Amino acid sequence: MLEHLCKKVGHRLSGSAASYEAVKYTRNQMLRLGFDSVWVQEVKVPVWQRGAREEAFIRSERRVGSIQQENKNRVRVLALGGSIATDPSGLEAQLVEVPDVDSLRRMRREQIEGKIVFINKALDQRPINTFDAYSGCVGIRYGGVSEATKLGAAAVIIRSITHLIDTFPHTGACSYGDAGRKIPAVAISTRDAEELSKQLRENAKLTFYLKTNCRTLPDTVSYNVIGELRGVEKPNDYLLIGGHLDSWDVGEGAHDDGVGVVQSIEVLRLYKALGIRPRHSIRVVLFMNEENGLRGGLAYADWARIHAQKHLMALESDRGGFAPREFHMEMDSLALAKLQTFVPLLEPYGIHDIKPGFGGVDIGPLRDGNIWLVGYVPESQRYFDYHHAASDVLETVNRRELELGAAAMAALVYLVDRYAF
Amino acid sequence: MLEHLCKKVGHRLSGSAASYEAVKYTRNQMLRLGFDSVWVQEVKVPVWQRGAREEAFIRSERRVGSIQQENKNRVRVLALGGSIATDPSGLEAQLVEVPDVDSLRRMRREQIEGKIVFINKALDQRPINTFDAYSGCVGIRYGGVSEATKLGAAAVIIRSITHLIDTFPHTGACSYGDAGRKIPAVAISTRDAEELSKQLRENAKLTFYLKTNCRTLPDTVSYNVIGELRGVEKPNDYLLIGGHLDSWDVGEGAHDDGVGVVQSIEVLRLYKALGIRPRHSIRVVLFMNEENGLRGGLAYADWARIHAQKHLMALESDRGGFAPREFHMEMDSLALAKLQTFVPLLEPYGIHDIKPGFGGVDIGPLRDGNIWLVGYVPESQRYFDYHHAASDVLETVNRRELELGAAAMAALVYLVDRYAF
Repeated sequence: MLEHLCKKVGHRLSGSAASYEAVKYTRNQMLRLGFDSVWVQEVKVPVWQRGAREEAFIRSERRVGSIQQENKNRVRVLALGGSIATDPSGLEAQLVEVPDVDSLRRMRREQIEGKIVFINKALDQRPINTFDAYSGCVGIRYGGVSEATKLGAAAVIIRSITHLIDTFPHTGACSYGDAGRKIPAVAISTRDAEELSKQLRENAKLTFYLKTNCRTLPDTVSYNVIGELRGVEKPNDYLLIGGHLDSWDVGEGAHDDGVGVVQSIEVLRLYKALGIRPRHSIRVVLFMNEENGLRGGLAYADWARIHAQKHLMALESDRGGFAPREFHMEMDSLALAKLQTFVPLLEPYGIHDIKPGFGGVDIGPLRDGNIWLVGYVPESQRYFDYHHAASDVLETVNRRELELGAAAMAALVYLVDRYAF
Repeated sequence: MLEHLCKKVGHRLSGSAASYEAVKYTRNQMLRLGFDSVWVQEVKVPVWQRGAREEAFIRSERRVGSIQQENKNRVRVLALGGSIATDPSGLEAQLVEVPDVDSLRRMRREQIEGKIVFINKALDQRPINTFDAYSGCVGIRYGGVSEATKLGAAAVIIRSITHLIDTFPHTGACSYGDAGRKIPAVAISTRDAEELSKQLRENAKLTFYLKTNCRTLPDTVSYNVIGELRGVEKPNDYLLIGGHLDSWDVGEGAHDDGVGVVQSIEVLRLYKALGIRPRHSIRVVLFMNEENGLRGGLAYADWARIHAQKHLMALESDRGGFAPREFHMEMDSLALAKLQTFVPLLEPYGIHDIKPGFGGVDIGPLRDGNIWLVGYVPESQRYFDYHHAASDVLETVNRRELELGAAAMAALVYLVDRYAF
């Protein structure tokens, strides 16, 4: 399934032709696997398109003897999701490099106006859980972009949020906050960020040329894909398992989040293959539009509330297809203590800890003080190597690690279904 | 350091020019890092050379209308370490496919004599720890090869021992046991093993052509490389940390075992960088000849015994540069219980278990009923994807996972040095 999603469907940003292919493919898979019910749920999604490939270069001049030499150094950038395009002729301006959003906030309008802000904040290598580092850095795409916009910048370049020094720009959604206007915003590869910073130290007057071709179209209709096995004892109590079907529009959306999609389906496939009938209904939800709007997660939670669908637990897989390590739980301490008694049973799959922590973005809107939210947490070291970049492809997923994750999820769901309520 | 070992030194089978480069390089690194003593220890090693690249093809014939068509299907093989070569003109014979060594043992001499035995045993996907599967399969290179030899086979082909269906043959040492003669022995890539098996099912009479060019030269002198920090309180009590310097003669010996080499050096580098003086002497030993003789491990243990060098513990890293998971211990249960109290302190590095298990091959000869033998156990899922193949290259090692392993080893050694004795 992951091979099909990656190689046949490909990347699948909300509203793209491939995103509808992904809906069709996963729906058909669930039908083929004989789930009790399979349906799609309408979701209004934003439509952002990258358009033609970005162009960007550093223009510098130097005098060699009596000759003025001009140098154009092409660099690799990707427009950030939601950003506007440059004029068709591109834009060119001097740069202001800042190390982080706080430094940018302390600057005066006359230092920034008309210039391109370059936020060169490196993803911190020190936190052992890489998601902790990411939380401390991703603000450059939100507060960073909106602050630069407010201060009158012509455009904004952020250093890609990855632990590697590589040649892939890593994109992601940006926000203009309450800036009241919009400017072109791009991510530059870490290698080019280091080169740009070096050249700026040597020549603060160099200019940067940027041409982006993205646009936002009116919202359109897309779909969450849903399949379930009906519970034998309590068919109206739901255990939800999910990942997101959309991906960024580069690479193949393998780790983010083709993995979560196929692992979620795999849990129910395992139930079918083993002839297990669950006590509660188990529902797989493949959310649309996690990457640039969260509309799928919001629509599902709204629908569940309106229709008084009682969810006991929701489990999300959106941290890559690496070897299992932990489950992170949002629930009261009594429930947590109960689930922690399962750890010895999960250790064979590589799960050695169940502890408090963030469940997940798509299941977040279901949070109501009662539902247990659970995040599947595999080894995190390599996740940001591929995140939101052209390098997030099938070949970076190890089949055994992927399958172990699905097995760990199936084991937890089984234990919760049988013994937790 | 790992980049240098992989890209500048390259693969480094005992006795090869590169193996001496590796000795020189690692010795110089330890000197540069200012270890208290650095020296090399002479080791007599076997010298096996692959020679020119192997040639192999499946020859089959089929009648298309009135025309007899001959087909040569080239396949990828690597001679097994220690095996003899074919005649310079190669050899060609019919095949006998067997699923495992036991089936081979049950066959009669007339079924095998003059034929090429093809042991098509797949590495079992089921054990979650991949080393358990490996233990159950590696016998095809020992009992398998010697049994085929005893039964009069012309040559033996083993299916590569890897979880992947890939195009890389995975080599390794073989043994003729007490067969009294030798025959050419090769590993075939898993993809080609499946193709060969398929063609054999369609045409049991097809023949296989094989030409290998390997040879064994007289033993020569090589070296273990040793460096240490002297203990402040008990300088004559040793804690040993090691990996092996040699590798198979394909790929770059990155996971096997460039990783163990650089992690071992890194532990002492961290001590120096942090200004920690150990209570006991800590000695890094980079063993020569793990892959095809174990002469380095044997020579070191002999020397330690003769010179009454008191070793309290030996820690080996030879399971790849993946994220830390466990330490496996050979020690009495009281000592084990003491070390298990360290687990909460090691959890930040990803170590969640200290339990009984195999220490390691190179430190094995030190086993004397007193010394604690410790194996560093990272996540095992991907190890046999690269093991003994041209795909074992630097690019498959994640820097953060590599460094976390070194940090986990340093933490354990620190705790043992300070609090265990």
